[in-house]
Amino acid sequence: MAEKITSRAQDYSQWYIDIVRFAKLADYSDVRGCMVIRPNGYAIWEKMQAALDRMFKETGHVNAYFPLFIPESFIQKEAEHIEGFAPECAVVTHGGGEELQEKLYVRPTSETIIWSSYKKWIQSYRDLPILINQWANVVRWEMRTRLFLRTTEFLWQEGHTAHATETEAKEEVLRMIEVYRHFAEEYMAIPVIVGMKTESEKFAGAHETFCIEAMMQDGKALQAGTSHHLGQNFAKAFDCKFQTKDGSLEYVWASSWGVSTRLIGALIMAHSDDKGLVLPPKLASRQAVIVPILKGDKAAVLEKAVELEKMLKAAGVQVFLDDSEQNTPGWKFAEYELQGIPVRIELGPRDVAAGKCVVARRDTSEKETLEIDTAFPQKIKDLLDSIQTGLFERALRFREEKTKVVTTYEELKAQVEVGFAVAHWDGTPETEAKIKEETKATIRCLPVSKDFATKYGINTEGKCVFSGNPSKQMVVFAKAY
Amino acid sequence: MAEKITSRAQDYSQWYIDIVRFAKLADYSDVRGCMVIRPNGYAIWEKMQAALDRMFKETGHVNAYFPLFIPESFIQKEAEHIEGFAPECAVVTHGGGEELQEKLYVRPTSETIIWSSYKKWIQSYRDLPILINQWANVVRWEMRTRLFLRTTEFLWQEGHTAHATETEAKEEVLRMIEVYRHFAEEYMAIPVIVGMKTESEKFAGAHETFCIEAMMQDGKALQAGTSHHLGQNFAKAFDCKFQTKDGSLEYVWASSWGVSTRLIGALIMAHSDDKGLVLPPKLASRQAVIVPILKGDKAAVLEKAVELEKMLKAAGVQVFLDDSEQNTPGWKFAEYELQGIPVRIELGPRDVAAGKCVVARRDTSEKETLEIDTAFPQKIKDLLDSIQTGLFERALRFREEKTKVVTTYEELKAQVEVGFAVAHWDGTPETEAKIKEETKATIRCLPVSKDFATKYGINTEGKCVFSGNPSKQMVVFAKAY
Ligand SMILES: [Zn+2]
Ligand SMILES: [Zn+2]
Repeated sequence: MAEKITSRAQDYSQWYIDIVRFAKLADYSDVRGCMVIRPNGYAIWEKMQAALDRMFKETGHVNAYFPLFIPESFIQKEAEHIEGFAPECAVVTHGGGEELQEKLYVRPTSETIIWSSYKKWIQSYRDLPILINQWANVVRWEMRTRLFLRTTEFLWQEGHTAHATETEAKEEVLRMIEVYRHFAEEYMAIPVIVGMKTESEKFAGAHETFCIEAMMQDGKALQAGTSHHLGQNFAKAFDCKFQTKDGSLEYVWASSWGVSTRLIGALIMAHSDDKGLVLPPKLASRQAVIVPILKGDKAAVLEKAVELEKMLKAAGVQVFLDDSEQNTPGWKFAEYELQGIPVRIELGPRDVAAGKCVVARRDTSEKETLEIDTAFPQKIKDLLDSIQTGLFERALRFREEKTKVVTTYEELKAQVEVGFAVAHWDGTPETEAKIKEETKATIRCLPVSKDFATKYGINTEGKCVFSGNPSKQMVVFAKAY
Repeated sequence: MAEKITSRAQDYSQWYIDIVRFAKLADYSDVRGCMVIRPNGYAIWEKMQAALDRMFKETGHVNAYFPLFIPESFIQKEAEHIEGFAPECAVVTHGGGEELQEKLYVRPTSETIIWSSYKKWIQSYRDLPILINQWANVVRWEMRTRLFLRTTEFLWQEGHTAHATETEAKEEVLRMIEVYRHFAEEYMAIPVIVGMKTESEKFAGAHETFCIEAMMQDGKALQAGTSHHLGQNFAKAFDCKFQTKDGSLEYVWASSWGVSTRLIGALIMAHSDDKGLVLPPKLASRQAVIVPILKGDKAAVLEKAVELEKMLKAAGVQVFLDDSEQNTPGWKFAEYELQGIPVRIELGPRDVAAGKCVVARRDTSEKETLEIDTAFPQKIKDLLDSIQTGLFERALRFREEKTKVVTTYEELKAQVEVGFAVAHWDGTPETEAKIKEETKATIRCLPVSKDFATKYGINTEGKCVFSGNPSKQMVVFAKAY
């Protein structure tokens, strides 16, 4: 904490980098564009994984693992897919000291290698559905990288499902984008817009892509998760047919969906402040820290601190005690604010004498003095809940302040400088491309969230903000990470 | 289950392949030597990960993630390391459509990339120890592969620790091999010998390698985990020094330790039989299956089956009910025996009328009729415990039957055809190499397990079984996977 965090007002990008570095979340490695996820950052990912994995299992999915390497011929089987991914792949040309006969691509995503297995596993409708998820690393050769948000290698999960009907596949696509929405809002405390991508923004090889879009504190959008309706594209590419109940042969329907360590970047950008990281309690591996003020009757203070720690642990609060004498309480306050510990409990000799302690919440910096009695652990748990919902509400208010319906191109240009612009669009890729070229804003999605659609009157007819041509619904424009 | 599993007696190798394939644990992929870990196999890995991860955290470790790619110049920094690993690496030469200036090796193990970070993180004794673990995939270009046991890509965990003193590093090495022993014996139900590798068998770049060695049902050894004392080798390679308390500069001491998906292969080979997989209850994601016999009063049977399932779940048993009418009870019995579900509960109309059910244990095929009363869930839990310990005891008896102290070279040659040979060795790599060449058996380890050492009189002096020269202790010879 010798160095000071750059303020958001001064330089938002540098602020982000400072948080990541000073809170020891990640480092660039000596390999171009690849990051080291440090223990503080990885602890957040573990919390995310645990919550998501439970939700995947509750919705009937199982985990499996497919190879890191994809033969070049596989990548080439789906035309849009090769066009989208081949240019950004890392390619293995040598193995075991010899040049390979066929190049191997390090997976940028696993549709092709997984469908080459599904082809072997699926013969009949009895083999369907297949509901598999994989936790894995993937590699995409990025030109400009940013820790967590865009790195050459990142960690993610990718669900890959196979179905007998298009209806079932589409249901799965929407079920999983809803799982992501729930996770973003309930765990990350980040409000998101569920929507559909335009043709030019959808996944290479998908029929439709659904996404959740979040707003960061600089008003930019961040795509936090996607769920793809793949139609029969990959089944056709791998000639994967199944025998239906009535004996005919049909191609299998598919979905795929994923979220990645990019979510950690979203989490940082959504909630943190100029003092450091702010973590929602549900994703904090350390929810509370006890800092004893070791003056006067040190032994009494320490004894009480240990008692508090036990009491809170027994109640299920993930608490730890920092009783080191190497650092001052003031240093510890700053350090744990930087690290985003949601609750700090201060305990001095006078507090101990009075049977009380001082409790500070990280999100608002509010402090209160609480009596240490049997109700104390529940009060801390209530406080953690209140921080969790408070963060969500603050982020929602912020998004609502920075989201405006615009009816002219001038308004749109101004609005995408500060937040989200909701506007009519004529549905053509030409208009989309022109607006992107001139404003650097993209269509984030065609919103499908009911609350959002109702609030902004998304599903009304009107005139395109750019061309003046008829438009059937409004879309969200924003600059994006 | 249309195809029949080859018996162990007929063809042990084919038996293993049949179990892996028929129980749907893994498949070869279309990428040379790489496997697909199917949901049934991955579920075992998840159970292993959960138990190990908890033990790592209880011993003070945290998780992190380092890059998949290692610059060629890093691999070359430690002389023994490059010699050991470079020939079996996959090499990335192109990224983002261009030829790379420096080749990137896909990690075969992460000492070098991790120590390039540690060098940045460590300045003073205050930064030590670093106790980090990583869950990751690694690639080693293997010539002959076998599912789980030896594949080009595999999943593992690798601990990498940094210490201020050699004593601390050595303590860590022994602490972690003890964690592995505990895991192998208590969770996998496999007795292991803890020992030290000879110079020729140790990890490339290590000062000393400790291992746990298990016996498979064909009498061969399988190395199930290793813990390396790396000395200051990697600190020197990466010029990683720290300031000691008294102000001098010293190189950092290191350990590394790992287990991999190879453990799944060990688990299969140690316990399974000619009917299929046998799983210890602690590593079974499904510990019990309820198979209702749907004849007569189907509704009453189903109702009772659902009640049983609830009762057992409430007691913490991981149970599931197969009430499908598509397959016969007989088909289900065979299928769940194949899949290694530890306990099967059969429930027919007469059982329901009598308030009883039939309980079959997978390991011994014993059946008993149990009353369905309030004590029932505890009886199932006791049965699971009894299966867990029973498997360990059976494996231990087997190992003891197949382990012999030998005093002549002829005896050694005969013994390594059926199991482990405990013998005096003169300590020279020449003798070791000769024996290996002539018998295909290697020195598995210099045992340090007290119980094993005492039982076989390991720490006595004698004469080398091959050269007749003086020997200070006995070692274990065996053929190995
Ligand atoms: Zn389409
Ligand atoms: Zn040595």
